[in-house]
Amino acid sequence: MNKGFMVVFDGSNGAGKTTVINEVEKYISSKGLDVVLTREPGGTKIGEKIRHIILDPSTPEMCDMTELMLFGAGRSQHIQEKIKPALQAGKIVISDRFDAATFSFQHYARGIDLASIMKINDLALAGFQPDMNIILDLDPVEGLKRVKSRGEGLDRLEDEKLDFLIKARNGYLTQAKAQPERFVIIDASQSKTAVLSDVIKVIDALIVKQG
Amino acid sequence: MNKGFMVVFDGSNGAGKTTVINEVEKYISSKGLDVVLTREPGGTKIGEKIRHIILDPSTPEMCDMTELMLFGAGRSQHIQEKIKPALQAGKIVISDRFDAATFSFQHYARGIDLASIMKINDLALAGFQPDMNIILDLDPVEGLKRVKSRGEGLDRLEDEKLDFLIKARNGYLTQAKAQPERFVIIDASQSKTAVLSDVIKVIDALIVKQG
Ligand SMILES: Nc1ncnc2c1ncn2[C@@H]1O[C@H](COP(=O)(O)OP(=O)(O)OP(=O)(O)O)[C@@H](O)[C@H]1O
Ligand SMILES: Nc1ncnc2c1ncn2[C@@H]1O[C@H](COP(=O)(O)OP(=O)(O)OP(=O)(O)O)[C@@H](O)[C@H]1O
Ligand SMILES: [Mg+2]
Ligand SMILES: [Mg+2]
Repeated sequence: MNKGFMVVFDGSNGAGKTTVINEVEKYISSKGLDVVLTREPGGTKIGEKIRHIILDPSTPEMCDMTELMLFGAGRSQHIQEKIKPALQAGKIVISDRFDAATFSFQHYARGIDLASIMKINDLALAGFQPDMNIILDLDPVEGLKRVKSRGEGLDRLEDEKLDFLIKARNGYLTQAKAQPERFVIIDASQSKTAVLSDVIKVIDALIVKQG
Repeated sequence: MNKGFMVVFDGSNGAGKTTVINEVEKYISSKGLDVVLTREPGGTKIGEKIRHIILDPSTPEMCDMTELMLFGAGRSQHIQEKIKPALQAGKIVISDRFDAATFSFQHYARGIDLASIMKINDLALAGFQPDMNIILDLDPVEGLKRVKSRGEGLDRLEDEKLDFLIKARNGYLTQAKAQPERFVIIDASQSKTAVLSDVIKVIDALIVKQG
C-alpha cells in the first residue's frame, strides 16, 4: 500500500483551484490510487455547519477572534475526523484551501496579529501539516474577471476589497518564500492545460516520494 | 450613573440557576437599575447559532478541540458584542453560565488538559473577566430529580453521566476555592426563598461596591 499524503490547492479567488482539482482527481484515479477531495472551511458535517456561520452575510458583526476560532474548530474536526483516517488508509487527500488561506486572508489582508492566529492554528493542527501547498498565483483582477465570467455577480465588490485581495495574494507568496519545502507556486495566468501540466509534475513527484 | 458589573450564575444541572436569575432580574429592576440577562453558550445571534452546533445530538463525533473552540468563538463574540457594551452603558449583566462551566465540564469532568482550555479561554476573554461567579452548589442526584420534576426525560442518562456530573460539581468547588475573590458558593439544596435571600446579599454587596 502507498503511504497517503495531503496536497492543498490555494490562492486568489478565481485562480482556478476547483477547475484543476477536478482534473487532478481524474488523473490520480486513473493511476489506480484512492483520492479524497475536501475543502475548507467545511469538509465534515460539523465543518460545513461552521462554514455556514462563517460565510453568512447576515452577521457582519462577527469579531475577528470568533472568526479565527470558528476556522480553528472546523480545521480540528477536519483533521481528526476526515484527513488523518484517509491518510492512514493510504489515500491521497486533496483540499480546496487549508491553513495558508487563514494566514493570507486573516493576517496578511485583514491585519489580525500573527501570534493569535498561530496559537489557534497550532491547537487545531496539533502537530499535523499538509505535505504540500500548491499556490495558484494570479493577479486578483484577473481572478475576479474569471469569477465574473463564471456568472457570479460582483455587485458588492469595492476598491477596498481589491486592495484586500492583493494583500492576500502577497500573503501566499510570502508564506511560500518562507517555507519552500512545503509550498509550490504555479503561474495560474497560463492556459488550463499548462496549469494542469505544472500541477501534475508536483503530484507525480509526491507519488514517487510517498509511494 | 452606576458602574456596570457582571455576575455569572453557574453550577450543576437543575441547581436552580434559571429560577433564581428570573427573581434576581425582578429584584434589580425594582431598584431602578438596568439589567441584561444572557447565557452561554449563546447570548448573541452568532452565539446562538454556535450553541446549536455544540448541542446538536446528531453529531456525537465532535472532537474535544472543536468543542472548546466553538465555546471560545461564542464567548469572544458574547463579550465584544454584548457584555462590554452593556457594562460600558452602566448595566448589570447576569449570565446563565460562562467560563467556569467550560473548566468544570471540559476539564474536571471530561479530562481535557487545562493548558489547552486556558489558551483558548484566554484568547476569548482577552483580559476580560466577570466580577463574580455565583455557584449554586447541589448534589447532582438532587439536581437531576429537579430537572425530572420539571418534566424533562432522563432516558439517556447513564451511570457514567452521573459520575461526570459529580466531577463537574467538584470542579466548580475547586475553582471557587482557588479564586475566593471571584467565586461565591451558595447551598442550592435550601428552599427557593433561602437561596434567593443568599443570592440577594451578594448582589447587594456588588451594587454597593460598584455604585
Ligand atoms: N487557467 C485558466 N485560464 C482561464 N480561465 C480559467 C483557468 N482556470 C480556470 N478558469 C476559469 O476561471 C473561472 C474560475 O475558476 P475556478 O472556479 O476553478 O476558480 P477557483 O480558484 O476555484 O475560484 P474560487 O476561489 O471562487 O473558488 C472558471 O470559469 C474557470 O473555467
Ligand atoms: N431551591 C429549590 N428547591 C427546590 N426546587 C427548586 C429550587 N430551585 C429550583 N427548583 C426547581 O428545580 C427545577 C430546576 O430549576 P432550574 O430550571 O432553575 O435549574 P437550572 O439550574 O436552570 O437547570 P439547567 O441546568 O437544566 O438549566 C425547576 O423545576 C425549579 O422550579
Ligand atoms: Mg473554487
Ligand atoms: Mg436553566
